[in-house]
Amino acid sequence: MDCRKALRESGDPVRFRVGGALVGGEEPVIIAGPCSIESPEMIHEIAGMIKKVLVDELGLRNVILRGGAWKPRTSPYSFQGHGAKALEWLREAGDEAGLPVMTEVMDPRDAELAASYVDALWVGARNMQNTPLLRELARIGKPVFLKRHFGATINEWLCAAEYLLAGGLEEVALIERGTRCINEYARFSLDITVVPIVKTVSRLPILVDVSHPAGRRDLVPWLARAALAAGAHGLMIEVHPRPDEALSDARQQLDPGAFSETMRELRRMKLL
Amino acid sequence: MDCRKALRESGDPVRFRVGGALVGGEEPVIIAGPCSIESPEMIHEIAGMIKKVLVDELGLRNVILRGGAWKPRTSPYSFQGHGAKALEWLREAGDEAGLPVMTEVMDPRDAELAASYVDALWVGARNMQNTPLLRELARIGKPVFLKRHFGATINEWLCAAEYLLAGGLEEVALIERGTRCINEYARFSLDITVVPIVKTVSRLPILVDVSHPAGRRDLVPWLARAALAAGAHGLMIEVHPRPDEALSDARQQLDPGAFSETMRELRRMKLL
Amino acid sequence: MDCRKALRESGDPVRFRVGGALVGGEEPVIIAGPCSIESPEMIHEIAGMIKKVLVDELGLRNVILRGGAWKPRTSPYSFQGHGAKALEWLREAGDEAGLPVMTEVMDPRDAELAASYVDALWVGARNMQNTPLLRELARIGKPVFLKRHFGATINEWLCAAEYLLAGGLEEVALIERGTRCINEYARFSLDITVVPIVKTVSRLPILVDVSHPAGRRDLVPWLARAALAAGAHGLMIEVHPRPDEALSDARQQLDPGAFSETMRELRRMKLL
Amino acid sequence: MDCRKALRESGDPVRFRVGGALVGGEEPVIIAGPCSIESPEMIHEIAGMIKKVLVDELGLRNVILRGGAWKPRTSPYSFQGHGAKALEWLREAGDEAGLPVMTEVMDPRDAELAASYVDALWVGARNMQNTPLLRELARIGKPVFLKRHFGATINEWLCAAEYLLAGGLEEVALIERGTRCINEYARFSLDITVVPIVKTVSRLPILVDVSHPAGRRDLVPWLARAALAAGAHGLMIEVHPRPDEALSDARQQLDPGAFSETMRELRRMKLL
Repeated sequence: MDCRKALRESGDPVRFRVGGALVGGEEPVIIAGPCSIESPEMIHEIAGMIKKVLVDELGLRNVILRGGAWKPRTSPYSFQGHGAKALEWLREAGDEAGLPVMTEVMDPRDAELAASYVDALWVGARNMQNTPLLRELARIGKPVFLKRHFGATINEWLCAAEYLLAGGLEEVALIERGTRCINEYARFSLDITVVPIVKTVSRLPILVDVSHPAGRRDLVPWLARAALAAGAHGLMIEVHPRPDEALSDARQQLDPGAFSETMRELRRMKLL
Repeated sequence: MDCRKALRESGDPVRFRVGGALVGGEEPVIIAGPCSIESPEMIHEIAGMIKKVLVDELGLRNVILRGGAWKPRTSPYSFQGHGAKALEWLREAGDEAGLPVMTEVMDPRDAELAASYVDALWVGARNMQNTPLLRELARIGKPVFLKRHFGATINEWLCAAEYLLAGGLEEVALIERGTRCINEYARFSLDITVVPIVKTVSRLPILVDVSHPAGRRDLVPWLARAALAAGAHGLMIEVHPRPDEALSDARQQLDPGAFSETMRELRRMKLL
Repeated sequence: MDCRKALRESGDPVRFRVGGALVGGEEPVIIAGPCSIESPEMIHEIAGMIKKVLVDELGLRNVILRGGAWKPRTSPYSFQGHGAKALEWLREAGDEAGLPVMTEVMDPRDAELAASYVDALWVGARNMQNTPLLRELARIGKPVFLKRHFGATINEWLCAAEYLLAGGLEEVALIERGTRCINEYARFSLDITVVPIVKTVSRLPILVDVSHPAGRRDLVPWLARAALAAGAHGLMIEVHPRPDEALSDARQQLDPGAFSETMRELRRMKLL
Repeated sequence: MDCRKALRESGDPVRFRVGGALVGGEEPVIIAGPCSIESPEMIHEIAGMIKKVLVDELGLRNVILRGGAWKPRTSPYSFQGHGAKALEWLREAGDEAGLPVMTEVMDPRDAELAASYVDALWVGARNMQNTPLLRELARIGKPVFLKRHFGATINEWLCAAEYLLAGGLEEVALIERGTRCINEYARFSLDITVVPIVKTVSRLPILVDVSHPAGRRDLVPWLARAALAAGAHGLMIEVHPRPDEALSDARQQLDPGAFSETMRELRRMKLL
């Protein structure tokens, strides 16, 4: 394989902080929030709910608020996100709740601006091998979570991470979000073998996005359990005040009640 | 979908007993044993170890001893199993340990003989759509566990189970054993979304074979945790006294120490 | 890879005759006929049409009549074939038209009987690794065409062929029939790279079933052109007097008009 | 499907010119040239050879010279292309040979510059859903060839094309370049059913890149034959003066002799 710094033998396991949240440590990270930041009110509402359940009630320390400003939609006619102004709303909501925040960036021309608002960035599956974007993010230096493309091999993914590492960025984590496999009942599949495999091969933290593989709300709690049981360093999970009204990913976002119950169940199983 | 009796809405969830083990109930079933029954001594040794760990130490009631007599090997030059005589060894080992036993059958001409020795049969992935075999097994009437082919859709799998149900056999369970996906570090992938999906769609119990997806011993404990966390009704897991000397599946069978530790860990996580 | 006699370096390219048809020679073989043999009349009608177009009009010498007696259907409630009596009808129709005949066999218990009626047998995709069947066919000694399972690797396919070769049967050919890939508009995909690859790796003739990959009648002529252009040793193609009334594969069988036009077009392109 | 202008029923089949080459017409387009533009000399040499064989000898009118300036490499340590200066070399080579030229663009910040040098642009598989790039290209208005990602569905591909069409660009064509399937002997698979399917579903021209699916030089002539036989509107094909010394794609580029022979064979088969 033609990557180096991403490999386990090239150095210590990568650990880094996003605000107060430790990524790659013993305790899992929970990255939660809506698919898209639809309004100031909704992101405040969700941020408060997440803080209440995860920090106040369950006492978790590694919590990050997520929200999309620019959305990589399959169709040009779907909602594309509120762009830069949504980042202000995200920042304020995070500050008020005392949570670090992260967003997705797709365009290298937006990267600097986005980085000025958030504590970390993620690169979505569809841009995993968008090398100009990766180079720009390495230059900027904020922590980056890199999702695996749904058609990419593990090596292609690690080599994409290597663009970040070779560019001088050390704070890099991986997010598995499901691949295209043989499954006519879900949008994608979640190959759970990937979690322990990546831990064997790479020194980068490996998280699982449990909302996108199935694209079905009812499966999310089960995937969350499986991901942590398989040893993932954390979860990314979509939650929306009223999922049925969501402007994107309406079928896969949890409502606050289901989100809380899922998290409490993970605690009962000692997975969190 | 052109199957009926396998679907959830067609009746109550299927539960049945294999000897004293309840399949499809609240408590998971553990089907453990060697890939191939290599000698009377090895199957006795393994049966005793399984009984000691699972029954005596952990107090499990749903335990079944597995062992292969006819092996579906990729190459004709690989060990093909000891055939009928191995079934005698399996029966004796099970009786001595007080465990029900099951074996794989590939040839409809062997089915009656095999059924006379064991408490249940399984159909391997490669014969999932071997309809003459399925019809013969429905006629014989012993419980059947049907593995999913690594290239089959969920509907094709349920329709294959329907051959058993339509033939009058009610005691049918499903085993996911991994599919062919994008994963260059494992022999197959384990799409964990399949477990909750099958529970939504079908009334048949769904177990996971955690030895075959990865084909790697080091991943088995993680897959076992993920499978039960995702809600599987049980596990099939290969264990061999000395895996490195095994005549088949040498790389994926656990040794007794790793097997015991895996089971104890599942107990600590309250998954067992 | 753990197969030997199937490999190119292990001997001369395999060529054999099925009746008067040469398989593996310079001129492609056309294996045509209905999915299922539905009645004596329909198979006679189709046999006459095939003979008229391919032999009389186009002057082809390598023509074989196909027809299914036992059908490997996904659902137990679909038409399963007329069984042994259909073989009589097939034999008579072939004899009358002066064409050799072949059928599919799934059950080792039927193999001897089937072989007594036909000039060659094929093993369907779903039974590619049905090793008891393969062993039985090797013992019987009639030519066998082995289809690739839609989830199998090329090596698994060649190793399955090796069960025939290792059992003493030299008259073995391969049929690619489409694999499961990323294609929401067709039942399966046709990876056309497989044709030249198999010719590089193996000494067995490689044909393409152009009816099953897409499962769509309108694509069949294009796949037939592509398969021969890619160097295939022949085609298997389904044709039915009135496809819309067919008891199986209604959507993919050509009617006599479309079949004739497809064959004439292959001739115009000098592919036939 | 949530795309409109890409669909067949939304208007006439798309045809457009790149320089003198007609894309989407009756006669296929040949897009040929090296993977990377490695030096002024090499691109001049290749341009002259292509002109001599395709235009002078075979009399083709629809010929475009391709060459990469920015390369989307899996690893950051592989040659990444000579960038903008290579576009000058490409332009000069094209002008001298009287051929229109095209290159790949990955970064929206490079798009304007690239467009100022070439007659058309292509978007590589890895950037198929790089929507900021697609929007920028629609704004610029030069013809765009959009490759299918190796993990994308056909609908995802058409929806990506829709970003171009919805942005006001009408001169859009599609290039199939192979998908990830079950094939351990080639880097990717070429699902040939896609060609006639896209012609049924969409009004956009569909070409096939015959160098990338297999990633093996010896298969390229066979894939070229199959692609045109299946009805493709043209080919993209890599050719290099001395492939073994190439800085990228060394194993899949044809040398001038093999390229010429492949083209002449297509002519003999009346596919060109």
